[in-house]
Order: sequence, then structure tokens, then C-alpha cells
Amino acid sequence: MEWLERPVPAVRLIDQTRLPVDEVYLEATDVDALVDAIARLAVRGAPALGAVGALGVAVAMAQGERDGWDDARLRHEIARLRDARPTAVNLAWAVDRVLPLLPDGRSAVLAEALRVLDEDEAANHSLSEQGADWLLARCPERPLRVLTHCNTGTLATTAWGTALGIVRELHARGRLELVHVDETRPLLQGSRLTAWELAADGIDHVVQVDSAAAGAILRGLVDAVLIGADRIAANGDTANKVGSVGLALACADAGIPFVVAAPWSTVDLATTDGTGIAIEERGAEEVVAFGGVPTAPAGSRVFNPAFDVTPARLIDAVVTERGVAEPKIRPDMSAVHQPL
Amino acid sequence: MEWLERPVPAVRLIDQTRLPVDEVYLEATDVDALVDAIARLAVRGAPALGAVGALGVAVAMAQGERDGWDDARLRHEIARLRDARPTAVNLAWAVDRVLPLLPDGRSAVLAEALRVLDEDEAANHSLSEQGADWLLARCPERPLRVLTHCNTGTLATTAWGTALGIVRELHARGRLELVHVDETRPLLQGSRLTAWELAADGIDHVVQVDSAAAGAILRGLVDAVLIGADRIAANGDTANKVGSVGLALACADAGIPFVVAAPWSTVDLATTDGTGIAIEERGAEEVVAFGGVPTAPAGSRVFNPAFDVTPARLIDAVVTERGVAEPKIRPDMSAVHQPL
Repeated sequence: MEWLERPVPAVRLIDQTRLPVDEVYLEATDVDALVDAIARLAVRGAPALGAVGALGVAVAMAQGERDGWDDARLRHEIARLRDARPTAVNLAWAVDRVLPLLPDGRSAVLAEALRVLDEDEAANHSLSEQGADWLLARCPERPLRVLTHCNTGTLATTAWGTALGIVRELHARGRLELVHVDETRPLLQGSRLTAWELAADGIDHVVQVDSAAAGAILRGLVDAVLIGADRIAANGDTANKVGSVGLALACADAGIPFVVAAPWSTVDLATTDGTGIAIEERGAEEVVAFGGVPTAPAGSRVFNPAFDVTPARLIDAVVTERGVAEPKIRPDMSAVHQPL
Repeated sequence: MEWLERPVPAVRLIDQTRLPVDEVYLEATDVDALVDAIARLAVRGAPALGAVGALGVAVAMAQGERDGWDDARLRHEIARLRDARPTAVNLAWAVDRVLPLLPDGRSAVLAEALRVLDEDEAANHSLSEQGADWLLARCPERPLRVLTHCNTGTLATTAWGTALGIVRELHARGRLELVHVDETRPLLQGSRLTAWELAADGIDHVVQVDSAAAGAILRGLVDAVLIGADRIAANGDTANKVGSVGLALACADAGIPFVVAAPWSTVDLATTDGTGIAIEERGAEEVVAFGGVPTAPAGSRVFNPAFDVTPARLIDAVVTERGVAEPKIRPDMSAVHQPL
């Protein structure tokens, strides 16, 4: 993700819906383009949504300057951007962080937004090191076979990644054997995006359908599961891509670590537990057709929750740049500690 | 599934790979056509594979008469049919059942094969009634919301269905509210086939991605899970479509029944437990492309097990026409009993 000042202030984004077939870049110069990119998941991933939210406020200000918006209109457009995806806490968090600088002008907002991006990258590196330390202290003394779901890499963040950042860190330390990549229906962020990132980095991986995961875990083919998060409640309950809680159940049954990795900005201490997290339901078209080919009878009703909530009792570790919480032992996100 | 005697002896099958878009029928007049239909899943489902295996022996005999095969060649071709899918026990079981009649001629084999079909239909009705009795004795006094995976209906059997037969029985008794239909990647037998059967019967259902199931179960949206089986070991361990064991874990966590439904011919008492069941791995092309559109980077390695094994400790009931076994309580398939 990049900021472009000329010819018109814009956020430059890779269109993730076109990967892995095409590498197409979008330059979003107005709020409509940003909201559309967020809604159709051209940009997704909690930290990336935070970055686009922060930079998006600067885009809105530039659009307002061009179109002569008053303050009320500008704030209305920023609110529309802030609410483009309800479950991801980082989007609202990042917009709220730069909003107090609105009276100081666009360059002040932009500077703060770029700090959001820098801090996210630094947080990712820090949490990846802490996550690798935590995991290696608990796993067998051989290269690890890990499983991940959805995409939590460079595409989902501003750089490096969260759960996939830990994967990269394990690889860099020579302690990674293989990554099982869940394809992540309905939008295939795993097979389209995570496999693309891992291939680019030369990290060994296999792509699998999501429902192959539980069997692989129970057969002893996986040493740990690493996922990201869209919102983490105060007790550690975690909303993440649909399918995450099924992985957590399999890990608990097999006795292997289930690890959530996210920047601290994903932790929402104002939400006591998972019952307070609204689960976004998305449209039927994501499920009943692929590439224009129907995959279900015409008119089928669809149940399409974008997320599920994994209860704290199933989560061994939540890794953030501030430290590691262990919700299964102590369901309290404020009890983070540095791994040994 | 139908037997056609003229113009050339053939098994007539709907091509399940073309549903729900097209209703195309195949007439398999030789062993190559049968093996091809089995291998590419134009016909699938354990009981349907049994039926096609039994009828297929008659097809092979007719082909042998036309082409002048000797007995060794005929037996070689029948063995090829018998081994077309390794995990499904019914295919080999049905071939072995009609094989002793080979010296008695084709009409004797055909008569026995047609008995296999009749018995399967009768077994399905019987097990569906017993399954509904068992479930209704344990579930709340309101119409049930059930979840099913893959396809276990008319398309997977010779008529009526196994797990979907119980669904139909609950519907007929006015005790069914809604069916959650897992789409069942990679080949989408749930969204393509089960949704098609339920729509034809006017049974309310929603289609969902497979990984939505665990979250739906933990949120209390489902009262019971009903699945079929490809092979059931003597202790109740059950091989079924990949994804089944994840559903069983979610049911155990939520405290709702996980029910396997299958004709007794699926029970393999010669296999002590699930460790003795070979898990068929299928090709990468099922996972990394859809309708000719790549869904993963070119050259991706794939892990594509067709089945997983659910351990007996997670199975509340195995429903067969001979009665119901309760592996969670007593891991012994010979301990079937009639439900109260």
C-alpha cells in the first residue's frame, strides 16, 4: 500500500480480488473508490484496513478540497469510510486515530496516517519474533509443520504480516518444514493470496480445502495452527475469518497450539467477550457461483457469515507486539507478558 | 440408476458432475465407461457405487460376450471395476456379492444385482425411520435444524437416501425446520447435489461454505449433524467425505448429536479400527482451479484427501437398517440395537 500525492492524492493498492491470475493496481482518489475497494475485498485484512482507513481520511480531505465540501460533508464521508466493514476493529480505530488532526490540515493527517503504517510494520516484526519464541519453546525440536487460514501476510497488513509474519520468522530461523494453506472459502484468500506470498518467498507449502484441516490435525500432520484476528475481546475471545473456530477445536482435541497473531490495535478492551461482536453476513453470490458458473441451484438461500468467534478457552496464545496473552490459562487480554 | 437391456446392455446414470446446471444421462455399455464414471465422480456415494458395481459385472459380461473375452480377461476387467475407488467398501462388497453367480450366466448375475438395488432402497427406508426415532427421542420438542455434509440422498444411493433419508423422514413427520447444507469442497456435492434434491422436495435449506459449520454449531443454530459413510470399522470409526471429523468435533463441543447413517454393507467388521482404512488422495486439479479459472498460483502443491476418519469416541450413533450402534458409549458395531 502506497500514498501517491500526484497527479491527484490517492492510495495505491493491489486489487486482491484479481490475484493470483493478474497483478492489477488500483489508485483510489475518492471515498467511493475506497468504500468500494473495502466492500468487495480488493483490500482486506485487519491491519491493511487500518492503513487504508488512516490514509483514506487524507484522500477524503483532498476530495473535499477539490469538490468544495463543508466540514459536515467531510465528516459524513469519513464516517462512511469508517463503517465500510463492521467486524474489523482496525478500520474504525485508525480513522479515529487520525480524526483529531482534521483541524490541523491534510499534511498533519497524512503524517499521522503514515505513522500508522510504520507502526504496523514494526508491530508485525515484533509480534512475529515473540510468536516464534513462544511457539519454539513449546514445540518439538524439529522443523515445524504449521497450518494457516485466510491471508495474514503482506497483503493483509502494511508489510511482513501477523500469523504469516510468524511463519516467515520461523522460516528465517530455519525452523519451518511446511505450511498447510487452507484455501479459505468463499473468497479463497488462502489459495489465491497466502500461497502467492509463500511461493514468492520460496517457503514450502501445500494448498488444501478448508475441511481437510481437522483431519490433517488429528492425523498428526500439523504441529501448530497460526491465524490472524479481526477483533479480540477483553477476555481473549477472537473474531476471525469463518472457519477459525473449527481449527481451534481440532487443535484442542489433538493437543497442539492454536495461536492468534494480531497487532494490539485489534484488541478491543471495550468489548467484554465474543457475545458483543457483531458477525458480518455477506451476500449469497460469494457462495453460489464461481467465475460465472453456478455452484448451487438457482435461487438457493445462503448462510454466509464472514467471521466466527473462537472462545478464549480454545486459544493457547494471542501474540501482539506488546506481548503474549494465554487466554486458555487466563482469559484476560491485559495480562500480556513477554515470552521467555 | 437404471438397467437398460437394449440396444446394448448398459447402466443408465445421471452425470452428477454436470448438476445442477445440466441434467445429462450416461449409458455405460463397457467397463472403461464405468471406471471412468466412477473415477471422475459422475457416480458417487457409497450405496450408489455398490449398485453400479453389481450392475457393472453384468455390463462386463455383456461386453465380454460381444468381444469374445475368455474367463481370465472377464475376471481381470471385473477386478478393475472393483478397485476403481479404494476407500468405498460398498463397491467391492457388491462386486463380490454377484461374482459367485458368474458361472450361472448373465441373467443370474443381473437378477442378483437388481436385488442389491432393491435391498438398498429398503435398507434406506428402514434406517431412515430408525434414525428419526433415535434422534427425536434425544432432541428438543420442536422442528429440528440439522446440518449435513456431502450428498447422501437419492443421487448417492439407489433411492431415498441415508443421512438425507433421515432428513426426508423428519420432514415427512413434520419435525424438520431447516437443513444447513455444507457445500462440500472440492467437488461441491452439497451445493450442487444435496441442495438440488432438497429444492426438488420442497425442503427448506441454506447452502453454506464448509467452514461455516463449526461456528453455526457453536452458536446454537444446529440441533444435530447427519452424515453418510464410506467405510465403518468394527469399532465404529468412520471414513467419510473430508470435513466430517471437523463436524464431529463441533458437535462434541456443543453437546449435540453427531449421527452417521449407512446401510449395513458399509460396515467392514474385518477392519478393526480407523487406522486400517486407506485414505484416497485425489488430484491437485480439483482444488487449484474452478471452471477453468485458476484459484491458486500455477504449480501449487496440493494436499487433497478425499476422506477423513471420525473416531468412534466422537460418534453418537451409527444408524443402519439392522439397528443403531452408539460408538461413543460402546465402540462395537456388532452391538446394534433397535431404537426405542
